[in-house]
Amino acid sequence: MKIRKEVLEFRPYRVLEGNYKIWLDKNENPFDLPLWLKEEIFWKLRGLHFNRYPHITSMPLREALAEFLGLDSSNIAVGNGSDELINYLVRMFEGKYIVTTPPTFGMYSFYSKLYGIPIVEVPLDENFRIRGDEIAEKAKDALAVFIASPNNPTGNLQPEEEILKVLETGAPVVLDEAYVEFAGKSMLDYVGDYPNLIILRTFSKAFGLASIRAGYMIADSSVVDALYRIKSPFSVSSVTMAIAQTLLEHYEVVEERVKFIMKERERMYEELMPYAYPSDANFLLVKLDAYNYLLDRGIVVRKLSGRLQGHIRITVGKREENDEVIKALKEFAKEL
Amino acid sequence: MKIRKEVLEFRPYRVLEGNYKIWLDKNENPFDLPLWLKEEIFWKLRGLHFNRYPHITSMPLREALAEFLGLDSSNIAVGNGSDELINYLVRMFEGKYIVTTPPTFGMYSFYSKLYGIPIVEVPLDENFRIRGDEIAEKAKDALAVFIASPNNPTGNLQPEEEILKVLETGAPVVLDEAYVEFAGKSMLDYVGDYPNLIILRTFSKAFGLASIRAGYMIADSSVVDALYRIKSPFSVSSVTMAIAQTLLEHYEVVEERVKFIMKERERMYEELMPYAYPSDANFLLVKLDAYNYLLDRGIVVRKLSGRLQGHIRITVGKREENDEVIKALKEFAKEL
Repeated sequence: MKIRKEVLEFRPYRVLEGNYKIWLDKNENPFDLPLWLKEEIFWKLRGLHFNRYPHITSMPLREALAEFLGLDSSNIAVGNGSDELINYLVRMFEGKYIVTTPPTFGMYSFYSKLYGIPIVEVPLDENFRIRGDEIAEKAKDALAVFIASPNNPTGNLQPEEEILKVLETGAPVVLDEAYVEFAGKSMLDYVGDYPNLIILRTFSKAFGLASIRAGYMIADSSVVDALYRIKSPFSVSSVTMAIAQTLLEHYEVVEERVKFIMKERERMYEELMPYAYPSDANFLLVKLDAYNYLLDRGIVVRKLSGRLQGHIRITVGKREENDEVIKALKEFAKEL
Repeated sequence: MKIRKEVLEFRPYRVLEGNYKIWLDKNENPFDLPLWLKEEIFWKLRGLHFNRYPHITSMPLREALAEFLGLDSSNIAVGNGSDELINYLVRMFEGKYIVTTPPTFGMYSFYSKLYGIPIVEVPLDENFRIRGDEIAEKAKDALAVFIASPNNPTGNLQPEEEILKVLETGAPVVLDEAYVEFAGKSMLDYVGDYPNLIILRTFSKAFGLASIRAGYMIADSSVVDALYRIKSPFSVSSVTMAIAQTLLEHYEVVEERVKFIMKERERMYEELMPYAYPSDANFLLVKLDAYNYLLDRGIVVRKLSGRLQGHIRITVGKREENDEVIKALKEFAKEL
């Protein structure tokens, strides 16, 4: 038995574990579901047949999303987290490499490396904006271009006109809108015009359902059809689908929390000036090398590296959690 | 945008859908969880933070399984169904091809084809037993050998001495024990002696939890470690873990149902002689070309092809479901 060298040398993605007081490292929604909503979920689960396989292509949730978005279920795929969808998207198209725009979400590279797919990087400009012309140039031989908007970990929405430059090339553009609800601006309406536009969304952030693993994709039906050819059958649990559907039926809960988080985000931004960057997401990029300082105080944030060495990414939490972070960072800054 | 030819030509795995009365096609457990057990699950879920990501390497469920099996959590991996684990196992080891033993479970070939990995077939003998010597011969250049025991769709346990012949080669042997609880005989105890033995199990069959997607692997810690390097982080939902753990805590429910299913299996076997083959699983292979005949009567079973053309696979259901199948098949046989 010999394990492949590429596997042994692969650097797994890991997160900090341990007993800390405040977790602001994973861009989770700070609020658990209200109990009445859990009880409504349990009512559904009392009637669910736990012994039966889920629908093989997750049709119940796709149909609920189609109604929610005003689209057809043939334009929607759901995955065991959007991670599962990324895992397929790096392997579906003809081309020589993927294009990414660092600093950005690590999973596009993670899955490409896993399959030995080369990665061409077109770094964000000094304002963390994508360079549409340069990406369009590289897109010609790309199997797919991955753009996150709002971008993680920088927090900013990407300009539509720059994304359109890339879409015009005809190359598949995976536009990751994981944080779109906090930005209030989506490119969903372009899906009809651009069959090469593939939008990724998730239930893990605004919906507050990171625990259940559900992400979705909106794309041309030819792309959805191709994905379901190679996708693991039954990969989205019936329980996950039932919970996600219940949240779609009570979107007012999501909206209320998004509003709160956006308000808190603006408060934190103002309090943390001049160190914080403006954000369209549920987190803030902060130019303070305070990872260890915060960790010593029981607060976990995300430590960044490379071009963002000396920066941290802070998820917007509950009011009292944000208060503690603001207080600690002000103290830290004073000592600079 | 050009979708890869291999993707467009890939034949997806699909199942029959529609409004039928009796579903005996997917080897599901016929019983939903008892309501009191669901309520116990809901108690746990009331306290679960739906907004937080699951443990990145599913440690809570791995530890519960370790305790249940009397092993260490470093010997256990869990996946979003054993499908997810198979998906990784075909890519983890050095070698030229995988070995399968048709007729057998289709997912070993499904995932290999997905990655363009060649498949060498060593067909079962006339009694559906694996040919240990021949497999051992092919194992030398194999990246992994996949053996299901009890085998699906033939239902029989594979002889230990034949499996040992393959294990002796040192090649990775993935022994799929998805139906082991209905056989009462496992090769679990050999894991300590053979670091190349990789056992797959599932919560979808005896545990009656096909809806939640949970499978597990028992193997040498070096194999578990390698798998977690390349595995999608967070792929097993916290809700799935909580439900699976609850069933481990109430294994008497599983045992009682397994006992019932085994008794029903023997009854069906005797009633369907001489057409049924003996089975160590929760289904029966039956040499009757009765797929359409049963479907016309609202009963869905699995239609087999290739070497098993003219055979059907029938999941053992509830007593009244089994009665209907027996009655229909006796009528069918009378008309032959």
